[in-house]
Amino acid sequence: MTKEKISYIINSISLPDYSLINKTQKLLDNLTKPKNSLGDLEEMAKKIAAITNNVAPKIKKKYLFVLAADHGVAEENVSAYPQEVTFQMVLNFIKKGAAINVFTEHTDTNIFIVDMGVKGDFSYLEKEEIFVDKKINPGTKNFLKEPAMSKDEAENAILCGIELVEKVLDLHDPENGEILLVGIGDMGIGNTTTASAITALITKTEVEKIVGRGTGVDDFRYKNKIEVIKKVLNRYEFNLNDAVDILSKIGGYEIAGMVGIILACARYKIPLVLDGFITTSAALVALCMSEKIKEYLFAGHLSREPGHRIQLEFLGLKPILNLNMALGEGTGACLAMDILELSCKILHEMSTFDEARVSRQL
Amino acid sequence: MTKEKISYIINSISLPDYSLINKTQKLLDNLTKPKNSLGDLEEMAKKIAAITNNVAPKIKKKYLFVLAADHGVAEENVSAYPQEVTFQMVLNFIKKGAAINVFTEHTDTNIFIVDMGVKGDFSYLEKEEIFVDKKINPGTKNFLKEPAMSKDEAENAILCGIELVEKVLDLHDPENGEILLVGIGDMGIGNTTTASAITALITKTEVEKIVGRGTGVDDFRYKNKIEVIKKVLNRYEFNLNDAVDILSKIGGYEIAGMVGIILACARYKIPLVLDGFITTSAALVALCMSEKIKEYLFAGHLSREPGHRIQLEFLGLKPILNLNMALGEGTGACLAMDILELSCKILHEMSTFDEARVSRQL
Repeated sequence: MTKEKISYIINSISLPDYSLINKTQKLLDNLTKPKNSLGDLEEMAKKIAAITNNVAPKIKKKYLFVLAADHGVAEENVSAYPQEVTFQMVLNFIKKGAAINVFTEHTDTNIFIVDMGVKGDFSYLEKEEIFVDKKINPGTKNFLKEPAMSKDEAENAILCGIELVEKVLDLHDPENGEILLVGIGDMGIGNTTTASAITALITKTEVEKIVGRGTGVDDFRYKNKIEVIKKVLNRYEFNLNDAVDILSKIGGYEIAGMVGIILACARYKIPLVLDGFITTSAALVALCMSEKIKEYLFAGHLSREPGHRIQLEFLGLKPILNLNMALGEGTGACLAMDILELSCKILHEMSTFDEARVSRQL
Repeated sequence: MTKEKISYIINSISLPDYSLINKTQKLLDNLTKPKNSLGDLEEMAKKIAAITNNVAPKIKKKYLFVLAADHGVAEENVSAYPQEVTFQMVLNFIKKGAAINVFTEHTDTNIFIVDMGVKGDFSYLEKEEIFVDKKINPGTKNFLKEPAMSKDEAENAILCGIELVEKVLDLHDPENGEILLVGIGDMGIGNTTTASAITALITKTEVEKIVGRGTGVDDFRYKNKIEVIKKVLNRYEFNLNDAVDILSKIGGYEIAGMVGIILACARYKIPLVLDGFITTSAALVALCMSEKIKEYLFAGHLSREPGHRIQLEFLGLKPILNLNMALGEGTGACLAMDILELSCKILHEMSTFDEARVSRQL
């Protein structure tokens, strides 16, 4: 059932309708501004048009999913923070005290905090609207010693991601050409180690070029982190055509959930905004399932984490922002979503040369 | 009187209180995020703290002034658009049909359209709150043939800029540590020619490295534009210590007005956000009057206009955004102001490690 649903989603992903790009450009060229003067904003509007099959898309709501999970490998001294911080930060998100809460409030973005596999009990929080319980297990296993999760668990996590997208789709009728924008963010102590292993594997890049300081590890932990990832990549056999297998060996529950969100957004033609290094590692995994998904992605920002640039080059994505951030939580995605929303507003709120009686180019 | 007021403003500009930077960093380091993980946003908050002498500044209102004027040199075939577009676009701004209206609406920014010297009659618009009449003259003279304006006019235009800042200051009481953020934008057919001449002169850079396509001139007009600027720079004697003289010879009324805004923001310790090539040319002129002004500036974005990078390097400013835009109107400034506002919200809306009971770094 789970397997079938995932296959169905993957097989029904089609390419965007690129013929929309020229049509939207014509609309843009009629607006009272020099041609192409809004640069990347015009590219954004055209890509959203092609993705949503809508010559003048209007963004109705912006949703950010912050997926949280713990990582067994955290016991290997790879993070600057103790593992309980994942649990503590999820509570902080729910109480609206974290950076991402300030960002979503500022940009009028709807935020959902999704427990994909956090160590700790949130059962008393059931009625919090911001919180979604999709816990597969309280943390992955230490993949230095054994696979992070079973294949069934990986598939269940992907399905959870698909369901998250279907849930917000159900909240809206698709009338009036109004569309949704979805972004993803992460929380999980140790997850830059997981994402680094995935990135080295899929982009076939040296571990040293990918691994960064995460939340700020010292030299000892930094070197250890590199060693751990190298050992892990040698420990298993991988098949790049089997994304579920990759996730089961070296994945994380939040990353598997994001894979499901990415697949579903491509399937349902929803523009999807990546955040930084963790979310983009999920895009790499999703790419192993369908090349087409990359047509539906926006890179919200360029993270300070060195492997992020390598990931984006692999996906052929240009980051919208470059603010030297390295926080995760969806902070980069959220800021970029606001600019993407603006790029579509231009199509609806600006006057044409004729309407405003402004003379055209000589 | 005008001269005295300008001198008074210039002489009473002091440096920001840089001791605030460490104090604000301490506040930031207590918030539930890894140290420095918000990168440039933390730098922004600290700079605003130092500028406003307020360890935790809170932005009360964002004001964008779009200054418009015509340029006599437009008759020399240097622009892709006919001169009447300046007048038409000001009407478009007032009717809220231009790009900058969409940007200010999206970011909840207060916009004022200021006629500094547009050819055309707006007198029937008197009651429009968005419109400010500071017209010095309907367009500068063609500086290829004679100085653009008199020294008195240049000083009057600077004074108008100062008055704009004083007007918005008067609207607010400075209680509760709430501060204002001011941005500037431009409208004026031919003004990239004016700004290029100013930039070549003050940064001592070859004209060819500075001049771009403005609103999209063809090859003929592009080469002509370079020729015109070279002739102009040879035509006059310049003294880089006499900003009023520079403005009178090769300035524009909107650029002179912006010089006044920049000086007043530095004087009254208001963070000032530049837009692109035109507004930054005003900053170069203001720099000739006081080196201290650059401490009060933010570069909203990097424009596609090639001279903008040279200007920003000269001022030592790093652009907040880089979206390949080249429109003017304050579009880049406006988007950046929204990010600057967010950078200050972080200080007020995030929980500390203690408040949220989140464990600190190992």
